[in-house]
Amino acid sequence: MDITPEAQIIDATHDILPGDIEAGAWVLSQYWRLYPQGTIHVAVVDPGVGSARKALALAAEGRCVVAPDNGLVTGVIAAADSWRCVEIAEPRYMRPAIAPTFHGRDIFAPAAAHLAGGVPLEKLGPPLTQPQSLDIATPRRRDSEIRGRIAHVDHFGNLITDIPGDWLDPSWQIEVGSRAVGAVRRTYSDAEVGELVVVVGSLGTVEIAARDASAAQILRAARGGPVTARR
Amino acid sequence: MDITPEAQIIDATHDILPGDIEAGAWVLSQYWRLYPQGTIHVAVVDPGVGSARKALALAAEGRCVVAPDNGLVTGVIAAADSWRCVEIAEPRYMRPAIAPTFHGRDIFAPAAAHLAGGVPLEKLGPPLTQPQSLDIATPRRRDSEIRGRIAHVDHFGNLITDIPGDWLDPSWQIEVGSRAVGAVRRTYSDAEVGELVVVVGSLGTVEIAARDASAAQILRAARGGPVTARR
Amino acid sequence: MDITPEAQIIDATHDILPGDIEAGAWVLSQYWRLYPQGTIHVAVVDPGVGSARKALALAAEGRCVVAPDNGLVTGVIAAADSWRCVEIAEPRYMRPAIAPTFHGRDIFAPAAAHLAGGVPLEKLGPPLTQPQSLDIATPRRRDSEIRGRIAHVDHFGNLITDIPGDWLDPSWQIEVGSRAVGAVRRTYSDAEVGELVVVVGSLGTVEIAARDASAAQILRAARGGPVTARR
Repeated sequence: MDITPEAQIIDATHDILPGDIEAGAWVLSQYWRLYPQGTIHVAVVDPGVGSARKALALAAEGRCVVAPDNGLVTGVIAAADSWRCVEIAEPRYMRPAIAPTFHGRDIFAPAAAHLAGGVPLEKLGPPLTQPQSLDIATPRRRDSEIRGRIAHVDHFGNLITDIPGDWLDPSWQIEVGSRAVGAVRRTYSDAEVGELVVVVGSLGTVEIAARDASAAQILRAARGGPVTARR
Repeated sequence: MDITPEAQIIDATHDILPGDIEAGAWVLSQYWRLYPQGTIHVAVVDPGVGSARKALALAAEGRCVVAPDNGLVTGVIAAADSWRCVEIAEPRYMRPAIAPTFHGRDIFAPAAAHLAGGVPLEKLGPPLTQPQSLDIATPRRRDSEIRGRIAHVDHFGNLITDIPGDWLDPSWQIEVGSRAVGAVRRTYSDAEVGELVVVVGSLGTVEIAARDASAAQILRAARGGPVTARR
Repeated sequence: MDITPEAQIIDATHDILPGDIEAGAWVLSQYWRLYPQGTIHVAVVDPGVGSARKALALAAEGRCVVAPDNGLVTGVIAAADSWRCVEIAEPRYMRPAIAPTFHGRDIFAPAAAHLAGGVPLEKLGPPLTQPQSLDIATPRRRDSEIRGRIAHVDHFGNLITDIPGDWLDPSWQIEVGSRAVGAVRRTYSDAEVGELVVVVGSLGTVEIAARDASAAQILRAARGGPVTARR
């Protein structure tokens, strides 16, 4: 706030569980492009804070991301048409004293503020050509079978998968684990109250929900669990 | 943020339980007029998203509300001196693609941004003369008995009722269910620590609290439960 | 928002437990100086709302704090080079009607908005020369033993103590209760996964953490518990 007081700050989420880099990467991958050009995303899920892991700043499609170099930007890089990345290394864009346990305060927030204020990405440090990448499984598609997984369980207990909605037509039947949950319908209220329903969710992928209830509870399903489509 | 970047965004609450329209309607009814004229309230408790339920925008006393037409605005309409309402139907004020499961992102937020940017309400769509209304019981008053209910349980476990404080004088005794909790006092600290206390709460209605403790836990009371005043 | 619409509002935390003045005082003491000059902190942990306790506004080192006079500013006063304080008493800087149960809305927020808009502190009311103070134990240092306590347990389960990091060198061994947890290391990842690790935290005091785990759970430790360093 000292550096770029006119910047508008939005709390996109504080709901990532401590240290869950994969969840952070997923949320960031889904939301970074929904914010307008000029947005600086500050993404800090950082169990390795103060270790040898680097800090990075990445620019892609008019947005920037500052984050620890621990795989958080995996999905951004996979989706971006093009990107450039630097290591945040220039002390003049950090707080004067760096606590080895709180780079969010001492490195990432100041870097973001300087970017928001117009400092060019390349001023923050040397190029980082190979950011760390998470080994996230991608859905596999065969003639009559698609194997994906639960990428995220949201606040409502909806199971958001990594299977693109446009891979399917109504002839495909979805299974969560070994439990059949039907074909794709249009929206939640196409099911009875408490009933499971498959939709193409707001992020474009297959989503298993339960009308006015939690699909995660009904199916005892969690992130990472297998989802299969067959026809 | 693309549409009206200068708008200031405030997160009034994210604590409504999923699908609890009545709780959303109650919170909105209490707070819409506390915000200054020019405020656009975005109220999305929307279990029927993507179904035939309409989207609405309502203007009353210098504020606007955008919401699904599912009863969320019941209390606003009941309290407003006058109001006008339209169905949000004009595609130019929505996101280009509408996911049937996320109208908060694709319809309500863009409509609010356009209203904040100066688009007149009537441009959003045709008049909606009869918004859906929740059948919310109102307190009944007789000579020596008033019957109301718990309208809301807050973060502290305080039980906020729908009984107007100015219906009572100190001769009235309050009961939650069948448990006597005394007459109205001035504030929480008029009770001993742990003791139940009846006050006229900050919204002008009778409230049952417990000093430095949770009245909801002590009384095992929940929203909707009966509250009676006798003299 | 009516009073000073251009003020930027930041939600520093809503995670203080109801009525926990000591926790509020601790958080405020750690963060008030991290925000830039000109910041108005609104600190409302207020179990005595509506009682005889006063409302205060305090200025120190270019920041202001508005708060109930119940000890919340104890740590600010202890740390500030100099400060001045008034009782908030002038009705023209409050809401027209004051609910005895919600001074956050009716007294503290309006006072903060007026301060943000340029009203001088002294206009809010008469001087308050002796704000209430919490009797917070301070760590005691002897030749070969330091006795402190757990001042805060954070979101990650890290135990943040009141023992200044610069009192220690690697010859000191730390104990939480009667359990030895080792000497100070540099950062969390200097330990194995699940292992306890002592660091000098981001606030400059000794902190007991567990790598990718909760030290509070492992040690069954809570705020106020004893921490000892010996050499």
